Amino acid sequence: MKNYSIARSRRLRSTPYTSRIEKQGVTAYTSYNHMLLPAAFGSLEDSYRHLKENVQVWDVAGERQVEISGKDSGKLVQLMTCRDLSKSKIGRCYYCPIIDDKAGIINDPVILKLGEDRWWISIADSDVILFAKGLAIGKKFDVKIFEPNVDILAVQGPKSFALMEKIFGKKITEMKFFGFDYFEFAGAKHLIAKSGWSKQGGYEIYVENTESGLALYDKLFEVGKEFNVKAGCPNLIERIESALLSYGNDMDNDDNPLECGLDKYVNLDTDINFLGKEKLKEIKKKGVTRKLMGVVIDAKEINVSKSINLINGKNSKIGELRSGTYSPHFKKVIGIAMIDKPYFEVSETFKISINDDVFEGKVCDLPFI
Amino acid sequence: MKNYSIARSRRLRSTPYTSRIEKQGVTAYTSYNHMLLPAAFGSLEDSYRHLKENVQVWDVAGERQVEISGKDSGKLVQLMTCRDLSKSKIGRCYYCPIIDDKAGIINDPVILKLGEDRWWISIADSDVILFAKGLAIGKKFDVKIFEPNVDILAVQGPKSFALMEKIFGKKITEMKFFGFDYFEFAGAKHLIAKSGWSKQGGYEIYVENTESGLALYDKLFEVGKEFNVKAGCPNLIERIESALLSYGNDMDNDDNPLECGLDKYVNLDTDINFLGKEKLKEIKKKGVTRKLMGVVIDAKEINVSKSINLINGKNSKIGELRSGTYSPHFKKVIGIAMIDKPYFEVSETFKISINDDVFEGKVCDLPFI
Repeated sequence: MKNYSIARSRRLRSTPYTSRIEKQGVTAYTSYNHMLLPAAFGSLEDSYRHLKENVQVWDVAGERQVEISGKDSGKLVQLMTCRDLSKSKIGRCYYCPIIDDKAGIINDPVILKLGEDRWWISIADSDVILFAKGLAIGKKFDVKIFEPNVDILAVQGPKSFALMEKIFGKKITEMKFFGFDYFEFAGAKHLIAKSGWSKQGGYEIYVENTESGLALYDKLFEVGKEFNVKAGCPNLIERIESALLSYGNDMDNDDNPLECGLDKYVNLDTDINFLGKEKLKEIKKKGVTRKLMGVVIDAKEINVSKSINLINGKNSKIGELRSGTYSPHFKKVIGIAMIDKPYFEVSETFKISINDDVFEGKVCDLPFI
Repeated sequence: MKNYSIARSRRLRSTPYTSRIEKQGVTAYTSYNHMLLPAAFGSLEDSYRHLKENVQVWDVAGERQVEISGKDSGKLVQLMTCRDLSKSKIGRCYYCPIIDDKAGIINDPVILKLGEDRWWISIADSDVILFAKGLAIGKKFDVKIFEPNVDILAVQGPKSFALMEKIFGKKITEMKFFGFDYFEFAGAKHLIAKSGWSKQGGYEIYVENTESGLALYDKLFEVGKEFNVKAGCPNLIERIESALLSYGNDMDNDDNPLECGLDKYVNLDTDINFLGKEKLKEIKKKGVTRKLMGVVIDAKEINVSKSINLINGKNSKIGELRSGTYSPHFKKVIGIAMIDKPYFEVSETFKISINDDVFEGKVCDLPFI
């Protein structure tokens, strides 16, 4: 597949780390919330192997924050998500589907409770701030909504714990998964969460003080030498093998959380008030008519740049592939697909056309295991 | 400047025309409303010269539509823009800043009035649909809001009129600027507007029927041979020379329309109801504290990937450059900058650092003339 350049501009702006990752060998970008997000440092497969054994530092500044504070902030945040936040605690992160009144997914952020009346919505790629502003204006909520100057650095991989301990001390290894706390570095306090968009373990550093964050970036590479640290980015192979869903790829505003297997974040049996609640009750009662599933395809290569139809032996469309990659682990192409009823019930086979060739595939459960 | 690849995925999806423009020599993309938008076909300067003398067909499918219909649609559309739409007519396009309750710009779309209760908001790069949905839910408006399957083709350049006349007949040349009408091609009806994101003249074809649109795409190149038609895209040089503002580049949610010289689209002296009206009255009364201006810089090259500070002789920041390009017409770098008070009043000089060299520049009016 031919490579095309990405055109730079303020509209698709650089991050504070861009000049560093360009010295460190970034080769491809994507856009994420109107910012450059690194997508490759040379071979995806080399980065995947490195990530699973070592530690990487990622420029994920594109994961922007929507800060919501004020008297009605809790009410607004709860209104936007089907996950029950009534027992949420300060210092914890919550994975929360944000949905509209038709139960269509608008984003799938991690929400950080910073205080009783202060939240960060750490967003996937859509302008959640506009939805929050529209709702707050329409409902006359007493809230303040803005995008703070936060540029996340992720430290991911099995050696991330040892690396971070060397810099921040033992306390950082004692944090629970999806907990966060504040740590001092070079004269600034950084919010650090035990989280990240891989299944290899690690942290996300919410850098508010850019100068200190850049010093920390350099420190991570200096101290990280003994752990074989490299610059990296969310890795397509690792995230699909781990079945980490990607908003905009695997699901979008035309899908609801029950179709996407997010049932455990859909809390219908409480008296909390959120958009799309009645719609979700109705969908749950009737049962979903399609479902996000795994697929395994007998092929060695794939590039997904839009949905690709999956066709069965009777020439019927059984669903569409939304993400895919060659998996070194499974030695086949694996992917995430929206499969129509009744095909999601069985180990259905299908054909798929990739670069004008036809390949055989099979539906499977997620995660792939 | 080194080139970096753009990573493809469904989240930054292809358009129906992508496979065609890749055969026609597209070399760079940017993202626009979560879609690929071509940014270059080889040399920007060659494309610029070609556009000013001939005709180009552009894949601008990324210019998505937000369709708003229903009993309260007019009320919702008016609520979002400071332009008075009370006398708007079916069959006309309206350039409308969309602003929030603080008068911060959210987008600067062209709004098409399709019917008394049906509108298309043809958006720049931000998720206006989420703002509209949030407002409609909060206000309990009786509206339907969705993104229809519309993939715009622009036909731009001085020979666009002759080319389009050959395909659609004389009627298409009689349309007024920012008017639209429906034209038949290959069994489908296409909405075509006399509009487009260049000052070289032309049309935008709102393709709803993809099959017919692809046939039309090919027809434009077949019939266009005699007019020296080429595939193209919005051209950075042409748009800056023409002072066409770009949302996300020249202005964003931290700016208000009065700072951006959009005064003629700010209608404060009517009784229409829109967000940010009181705030705009207040700003107008006090006067703006900064203003979008042109700048001319004694340099031969620039790449703007984020705001660049402009510093005067006394080492004070007088503003920031937001877009820039080398202009073959002015034989200098020209750009669009947000200039702070009091420097926007005068023909102020400044220094700017580009690739570690320092250049001299001067503030000027927009358009450059």
